[in-house]
Amino acid sequence: MSTDKVEIFDTTLRDGEQVPGCKLDTRQKLKIAARLDALGVDVIEAGFPVSSPGDFRSVSEISQLVKNAAVCGLTRAVKKDIEVAAEALKYAKKPRIHTGIGTSDPHIKHKFNSTREEIIKRAVDAVSYARKFVGDVEFYAEDAGRTDNEFLARVCTEVVKAGATVLNIPDTTGYCLPDEYGEKIKYLKDNVKDIDKVRISCHCHNDLGMATANAIAGVVNGARQIECTINGIGERAGNTALEEVVMILRQHPRLQLNTDINPQLLFDTSAMVSREMGMLVQPNKAIVGANAFAHSSGIHQDGVIKNRETYEIIDPADVGVTESAIVLTARSGRAALAYKAKKMGYELTKLQLDTVYAEFLNYADARRCVEDNDIHEIMELSQRKIRATA
Amino acid sequence: MSTDKVEIFDTTLRDGEQVPGCKLDTRQKLKIAARLDALGVDVIEAGFPVSSPGDFRSVSEISQLVKNAAVCGLTRAVKKDIEVAAEALKYAKKPRIHTGIGTSDPHIKHKFNSTREEIIKRAVDAVSYARKFVGDVEFYAEDAGRTDNEFLARVCTEVVKAGATVLNIPDTTGYCLPDEYGEKIKYLKDNVKDIDKVRISCHCHNDLGMATANAIAGVVNGARQIECTINGIGERAGNTALEEVVMILRQHPRLQLNTDINPQLLFDTSAMVSREMGMLVQPNKAIVGANAFAHSSGIHQDGVIKNRETYEIIDPADVGVTESAIVLTARSGRAALAYKAKKMGYELTKLQLDTVYAEFLNYADARRCVEDNDIHEIMELSQRKIRATA
Repeated sequence: MSTDKVEIFDTTLRDGEQVPGCKLDTRQKLKIAARLDALGVDVIEAGFPVSSPGDFRSVSEISQLVKNAAVCGLTRAVKKDIEVAAEALKYAKKPRIHTGIGTSDPHIKHKFNSTREEIIKRAVDAVSYARKFVGDVEFYAEDAGRTDNEFLARVCTEVVKAGATVLNIPDTTGYCLPDEYGEKIKYLKDNVKDIDKVRISCHCHNDLGMATANAIAGVVNGARQIECTINGIGERAGNTALEEVVMILRQHPRLQLNTDINPQLLFDTSAMVSREMGMLVQPNKAIVGANAFAHSSGIHQDGVIKNRETYEIIDPADVGVTESAIVLTARSGRAALAYKAKKMGYELTKLQLDTVYAEFLNYADARRCVEDNDIHEIMELSQRKIRATA
Repeated sequence: MSTDKVEIFDTTLRDGEQVPGCKLDTRQKLKIAARLDALGVDVIEAGFPVSSPGDFRSVSEISQLVKNAAVCGLTRAVKKDIEVAAEALKYAKKPRIHTGIGTSDPHIKHKFNSTREEIIKRAVDAVSYARKFVGDVEFYAEDAGRTDNEFLARVCTEVVKAGATVLNIPDTTGYCLPDEYGEKIKYLKDNVKDIDKVRISCHCHNDLGMATANAIAGVVNGARQIECTINGIGERAGNTALEEVVMILRQHPRLQLNTDINPQLLFDTSAMVSREMGMLVQPNKAIVGANAFAHSSGIHQDGVIKNRETYEIIDPADVGVTESAIVLTARSGRAALAYKAKKMGYELTKLQLDTVYAEFLNYADARRCVEDNDIHEIMELSQRKIRATA
């Protein structure tokens, strides 16, 4: 079955890094950029060069470092921004300038105090100007999520004519539901002139918890690039999580879409980004959270011990996690306790297990979870009881 | 426009509490149950009574405490479980027994070493037995996400006939995509006899980051109950997050669905559950994360200062957050700096702002974020420069 490639545009170092508390120095950015390149992302958005001297320096040094991925710099639809980005990207093997402007009525009215015609002109001018410096220019229609589809298609048609190679359709406020966002992409596929000569990109925010679902709806409807970040970090509630879209496409072959990401590096990359940015990943984060493969209830543990696929759809080793952790709590059953005890050298008969399990429940009811050390103590307590009643 | 009510079934104290490290004592469970009742949830799943003496006690005490919500206890399709649950629930104003069995081929084969016919019989027996104790019996078809729709409809038809009042269709492994899960619910609406006499419930897991999107796809296709947890905690990558589905239905009136949740209690409830369970909420968590309403990039801050709706789809006050935080970083622009400085008593001319902004960028490039205290220092540094060049 032939599958189509979806490009992965990583914006951990731009949309991710602009988060309160996530600021990185150049050395840290280079370290993460090298890892993203090894991970197999197609594009690294390295920063917003005009925004500060530190950001300019980082984009410039990342451009020199990266071997495989395209390196991208963000700009507003402003000549100065574009010139500075071009300068920062001049050593990149595959430079891309990412320029754009708000296209929704709230943005046109409140942010730019402008008109639709004027916005189209500024968009076209920015794309044409960026094309003087590089061959690969991505245009973003900021707040496309709240832009009416007909006007959005007009803007897109004009910037494609002006030389844009990628059209980024951001749901800037994270408002869309998957059906709406998917329909928007489909509308553009059907109504933008020469759309098949360019690549549509999904850039979704997670304000309602929909960033990943929206990006998937986008590629199902014809987009072929997803903008995302490691751990889903980014402005406010963050962006589409790279690890989630990669694993969805991998686990759902019926979609006939693939990426070039090496999933075995996902877990370590997540940990590295979390550490460098000081940005915690919650234990229940999909794919990369500490509990993502931990089974704790008795029913689940029993199932997993009998056959992994009963409760696991992803082999943890596929994403770089060495084994699914069986953690014991008061909700664990006899099977999990026997399994863990056996791993620690205790072979129990069914009768012994009954005694040990009763002891275990008393013990576990008073504690958050039962560690390996505790098992030895429970065995000791149980043996005393067995001896006492013998 | 008339809207249909979606019931909120909170399982923070059952699916959430079975997470490694999240164990609560009875006092903590009562505190959370009281808050859930005030929040307006329709059903509180209080525990799995047969699993341990502590859990039995908690379900029993919660049953006596809760004023408005139904109180529910989980069981396997096992007589003993059902008897113990009925005993634990006997003081509840509105008791519900939640019983069920795995219906997917991997569950039938690996977990039960059984056959489809035998599974139907055990399901029917469990529901009939539970109905001897209470009038409200919810049936779960475990691993419904991987159960073929035709067999699932047969199981559902039989348990409805046996007296089930609610049909829970869990995507136990978190594998479904929203279109698949929505189609499954639609198939049941179209193919289960007397389906309109019962309520279909969505219970989705987040292994691929789809728990919220799947639950929404479920209610759009006819389900009228969502099983969810505060902060999306639960086995592995967790469950549908209560705060996300509530705000999606609220912000998308075109869906014509509503809940009875008081959104103003969402933020404080999230913080309480996180604190009691020692389970961190990541800063980029939708609705309740520390950064969910924090704008840090210059472009965004400028937009929000001009008009809140440029980048915010939810008024933070609606979910109990007092104001959207403007946090300054090296990615912040002049507008945000001027806004923050003004709030702190510094009125700057355009010329002064240029000097202060240059100083601010130097300062911010070396730090993660700029606090209020730092602003005073930046002003001091800038004034020295202004004096020096005057």
